[in-house]
Amino acid sequence: MAISNIRYGEGVTKEIGMDLQNLGARRVCLMTDKNLSQLPPVTAVLNSLAKYGINFQMYDNVRVEPTDQSFLDAIKFAKKGEFDAYVAVGGGSVIDTCKAANLYASGPMSDFLDYVNAPIGKGKPVSVPLKPLIAVPTTAGTGSETTGVAIFDFKELKVKTGIASRAIKPTLGIIDPLHTLSMPERIVANSGFDVLCHALESYTALPYNMRSPCPSNPINRPAYQGSNPISDVWALHALRIVAKYLKRAIRNPEDREARAKMHLASAFAGIGFGNAGVHLCHGMSYPISGLVKIYKPKDYNVDHSLVPHGLSVVLTSPAVFAFTAQMHPERHLEAAEILGADIRTARIKDAGFILADTLRKFLFDLNVDDGLAAIGYSKADIPALVKGTLPQERVTKLSPRPQTEEDLSALFEASMKLY
Amino acid sequence: MAISNIRYGEGVTKEIGMDLQNLGARRVCLMTDKNLSQLPPVTAVLNSLAKYGINFQMYDNVRVEPTDQSFLDAIKFAKKGEFDAYVAVGGGSVIDTCKAANLYASGPMSDFLDYVNAPIGKGKPVSVPLKPLIAVPTTAGTGSETTGVAIFDFKELKVKTGIASRAIKPTLGIIDPLHTLSMPERIVANSGFDVLCHALESYTALPYNMRSPCPSNPINRPAYQGSNPISDVWALHALRIVAKYLKRAIRNPEDREARAKMHLASAFAGIGFGNAGVHLCHGMSYPISGLVKIYKPKDYNVDHSLVPHGLSVVLTSPAVFAFTAQMHPERHLEAAEILGADIRTARIKDAGFILADTLRKFLFDLNVDDGLAAIGYSKADIPALVKGTLPQERVTKLSPRPQTEEDLSALFEASMKLY
Repeated sequence: MAISNIRYGEGVTKEIGMDLQNLGARRVCLMTDKNLSQLPPVTAVLNSLAKYGINFQMYDNVRVEPTDQSFLDAIKFAKKGEFDAYVAVGGGSVIDTCKAANLYASGPMSDFLDYVNAPIGKGKPVSVPLKPLIAVPTTAGTGSETTGVAIFDFKELKVKTGIASRAIKPTLGIIDPLHTLSMPERIVANSGFDVLCHALESYTALPYNMRSPCPSNPINRPAYQGSNPISDVWALHALRIVAKYLKRAIRNPEDREARAKMHLASAFAGIGFGNAGVHLCHGMSYPISGLVKIYKPKDYNVDHSLVPHGLSVVLTSPAVFAFTAQMHPERHLEAAEILGADIRTARIKDAGFILADTLRKFLFDLNVDDGLAAIGYSKADIPALVKGTLPQERVTKLSPRPQTEEDLSALFEASMKLY
Repeated sequence: MAISNIRYGEGVTKEIGMDLQNLGARRVCLMTDKNLSQLPPVTAVLNSLAKYGINFQMYDNVRVEPTDQSFLDAIKFAKKGEFDAYVAVGGGSVIDTCKAANLYASGPMSDFLDYVNAPIGKGKPVSVPLKPLIAVPTTAGTGSETTGVAIFDFKELKVKTGIASRAIKPTLGIIDPLHTLSMPERIVANSGFDVLCHALESYTALPYNMRSPCPSNPINRPAYQGSNPISDVWALHALRIVAKYLKRAIRNPEDREARAKMHLASAFAGIGFGNAGVHLCHGMSYPISGLVKIYKPKDYNVDHSLVPHGLSVVLTSPAVFAFTAQMHPERHLEAAEILGADIRTARIKDAGFILADTLRKFLFDLNVDDGLAAIGYSKADIPALVKGTLPQERVTKLSPRPQTEEDLSALFEASMKLY
């Protein structure tokens, strides 16, 4: 289990120029997106770069919910710039794009598919040395600052996939809760749902000693190792924070305590799932995002349709945990209790129902769209959604309960309407 | 906050030959002590080295509770061997000695005092690159496999001190609970007390944002940063395991579950205190160990007097937490509750008394010697014990409550007899 360096505190972003000086960086690539480039988190970084005389170029063309093409654009910029360090300021989209840019610019002879997860890409291990990457998360969701994962939408296949390697994990994550004060309400909600699912999925993932294949050489073991006694600590801790602070963080942008707690919970859950992995909510979310039709979420200032990642993940969560509970019912019950259920008289065999019900209440209270139907899907789309889930075996095989195509179909159907 | 890589599981030691192959190691230094060299943990490592054809030299001359001289002996061996990787199999003494050997063999021009903590040594930052070090802990106590600290007894000054730098943190910790089955009863107890104090001290240490001086450049910040929201997670989790499993692990060598849980708790607490730091129990323990007269503990097969580290730490714990509680009473009360106290009707101002009382009961149940008097100290020794504590400011200044010489004197006096 490997864990990134993180630094936490209000205002710590102002030290980033010193960090880059300490790294001996002479040509820095600063990545962000168009919205953020006008907002305080980027300003704080720019001020620090100026103060310490750091030479940099800014790339603010990152796409929210990136695609293979938007990754390639960023990679092209990175190759041309011959940078010796990277700084990513943003949510998961920015940090993931920056990881990919660093990776392919560090090994310029690689074909794009070389490192993309099998079976879509070749899933080759990374052997080139990468440049240092400092991640400054501005949402409280992906935990991307702590993981070796970069997710994108493969347009041609209409499916999300990614790159997963410990080698692309950021050198340092700067967790400055001041940045979360810039987040609009739905971004807090959707990124918080991602934290919720990271915690729930990694806590209920197939245990590390039941995973197969189990490569005998440690170097060949995947980043996602199954639930284990260490990731469990992070997952439960993150879940407790979500239970206590997510609603407050969503409802009141001035609630600094709640927003700061969620910012840390995002990193905690990231460390947990970055080692244990996620399973069905994430596996099924990729086609939900990839096949988006016309849904345009509130508070996202973008010119294309998109289903925010956290929303695409959480909409199936009641159905998923009702399905998986029979394998580890006591863990599902424990999660339900943390999320507020009274389990004193609960029967263990009802664990899945209880957790699903608790999640539905939680989502209803937070004004979440009423299921996949509310974001534009109908029964007719289920075969395509199932087809888009099948290649996600990197995560779906970490489900504690194996699933057939019929099971997936039933899970999507059960997620059409939640309330 | 930086955290080492750890690998956990029964039997994972057998993979160490492969790890060394993956590291490209051609000349490995295997460090252990004379007792362990005949025991299953070393056998497991030797079998793996043989299976993967790893060329190595064994150094089994590590001293339990090492001294400057025993460090220097190991360093001499390491310099001569020109090794490209290190494996340490043992408790904190072995792992700490191996860290020092790796450090000074990697920078052979350094003077021994260069890296020793100020004010005893010069406390220089480490700038030489070290070789990979794989630590295989065989006790459940120091958590040395996760920290950048190496402690030794400076004979000339009759005081324990150490080297503290992230640079000496092991590359990988292999946590194989099978090894704990070789531990005699008192070694389980004493190393468990070290875990207990790591957890309690790091949870009650001065908060990270109240520490001073606070170097403006992150590179100059000490390894021990004060309690923080991340180290808190580890400290509390370790404390809960200690509360639940330490007695079982001590009383029944066949209780694999309890011994495995304590083995992990040791690493968890190590990650916590390795970032937050420890304070008075540890600061005062160094002269308690360093000034030992004729105490020879049960179950330690050594030819010199010694106070085992965990014992030297825990004997002052009731007095220390009674003293510090006024600064963070709610944390002290929470710790008491985790250790079994009923705090439903407790008054916050009694937090120190309650935690001290809970600790005394805990130690009494585990047949711990009745205070400093029982291990050979009397009131007449207090001035020397205080004098030996004063240079430990690296840790004592992390106490949430500042302390005068008179305070230290009173703490030693209150620790002469516990029950």
